[in-house]
Amino acid sequence: MKIEEKDVFKSYFKNLTLRERAVFEGGITLGALFHQFVGTPVSLKNREILERSIEESMKNQPCVEDISVEIVGNLKEDEYVSLEGKMLDVKLKVKVENTVAYLRLRYIKELNYPLMYVERIDEE
Amino acid sequence: MKIEEKDVFKSYFKNLTLRERAVFEGGITLGALFHQFVGTPVSLKNREILERSIEESMKNQPCVEDISVEIVGNLKEDEYVSLEGKMLDVKLKVKVENTVAYLRLRYIKELNYPLMYVERIDEE
Amino acid sequence: MKIEEKDVFKSYFKNLTLRERAVFEGGITLGALFHQFVGTPVSLKNREILERSIEESMKNQPCVEDISVEIVGNLKEDEYVSLEGKMLDVKLKVKVENTVAYLRLRYIKELNYPLMYVERIDEE
Amino acid sequence: MKIEEKDVFKSYFKNLTLRERAVFEGGITLGALFHQFVGTPVSLKNREILERSIEESMKNQPCVEDISVEIVGNLKEDEYVSLEGKMLDVKLKVKVENTVAYLRLRYIKELNYPLMYVERIDEE
Repeated sequence: MKIEEKDVFKSYFKNLTLRERAVFEGGITLGALFHQFVGTPVSLKNREILERSIEESMKNQPCVEDISVEIVGNLKEDEYVSLEGKMLDVKLKVKVENTVAYLRLRYIKELNYPLMYVERIDEE
Repeated sequence: MKIEEKDVFKSYFKNLTLRERAVFEGGITLGALFHQFVGTPVSLKNREILERSIEESMKNQPCVEDISVEIVGNLKEDEYVSLEGKMLDVKLKVKVENTVAYLRLRYIKELNYPLMYVERIDEE
Repeated sequence: MKIEEKDVFKSYFKNLTLRERAVFEGGITLGALFHQFVGTPVSLKNREILERSIEESMKNQPCVEDISVEIVGNLKEDEYVSLEGKMLDVKLKVKVENTVAYLRLRYIKELNYPLMYVERIDEE
Repeated sequence: MKIEEKDVFKSYFKNLTLRERAVFEGGITLGALFHQFVGTPVSLKNREILERSIEESMKNQPCVEDISVEIVGNLKEDEYVSLEGKMLDVKLKVKVENTVAYLRLRYIKELNYPLMYVERIDEE
């Protein structure tokens, strides 16, 4: 049984609405992703497998329904860099019962900051 | 000006209630803390400074009002280990305008899982 | 041009023998691998892509000729854990000119410690 | 007993000279430090405690005799950033019996790269 399906787990979330729960789990996953993978050596050779691997590791997190990770920025032939937060463009879908939150992590130039925010919440 | 006080920043959060916003920021901070510091070498000698340092680094995150970090578990004289999630007991206070969320990260034995959850939300 | 082929880079290593250089670069890569990826969510579903992704990211590091990563330990259906150091079994081949060092990271039960060591150095 | 003083531990290093052993342990510690702490939120408020905390955590690593960490770069009032490799200036002293290696991690502008290298090895 997945962790989020267990009664003990659920008992800790009775004080939240489904929307609150969805954005809470989404926040955890975005914070986790950023701080787990920033610093990873990345080049043209491993960019794609790193994107897929980040997606698959984050799908383990509670309530993550889908995720897409794109590593943006100009990587040069024969060079590698440490992954930076500003290179991450992440779209995350979190589902709690019938409530679905769509979240985003991307670099906002005006803020010079990799921002995590909620794009939309649907009650299906 | 702190990032969360900027108008551009605020414009991304108009679609959330204050409660949703507070638990979202709290989730980010707990996920970030866990995945940034798990793996750090820790012993009786550096446990306390590591606790304080984790607290101070996380106070930089948007809307974090207060945080206490305790590293639990039996550390033995002259030995060190890599910090594990189950060793973290974190109390986090997040404030968005007059709304204050109290969050927690701690190991739940029944689940064999370091759980992140919301203890309480106050509207002051 | 790869970083390790640049004259400025090479100028910093004139004080080391080829063997010393090989084990130095090997040590960096093992320390980097451990502290970058410990904490990553892993389950039966993403174990293999995570292994491949760690290998490919570490191949970017200077002088890494080959690497194999195996994530060991009993993962259970529908559960995930945070990657721990003791779950890593890594074989690393580092080449500096004609000198090849074979390094290893694996959990040593007698020490209760994930040990990094040098298995062999060949001068070809 | 510290891990590096145990016979089982020592038995894995019989194939290395003291110099090789010192630079191997030094490489591990520099790679570990970089990949553990890159990404940490840092501002004028927590820079100093973070420097001290990194030092104290790395003193746990085998054979680390002394270490100094300086976080360089212009941090602005009321702003924080994620720690980047290029902001690290680290001096590390590793001792194996009578052999002492002095290592360094610092950003080299000509290479646009945070370089880890060995400054000197003394046989005392």
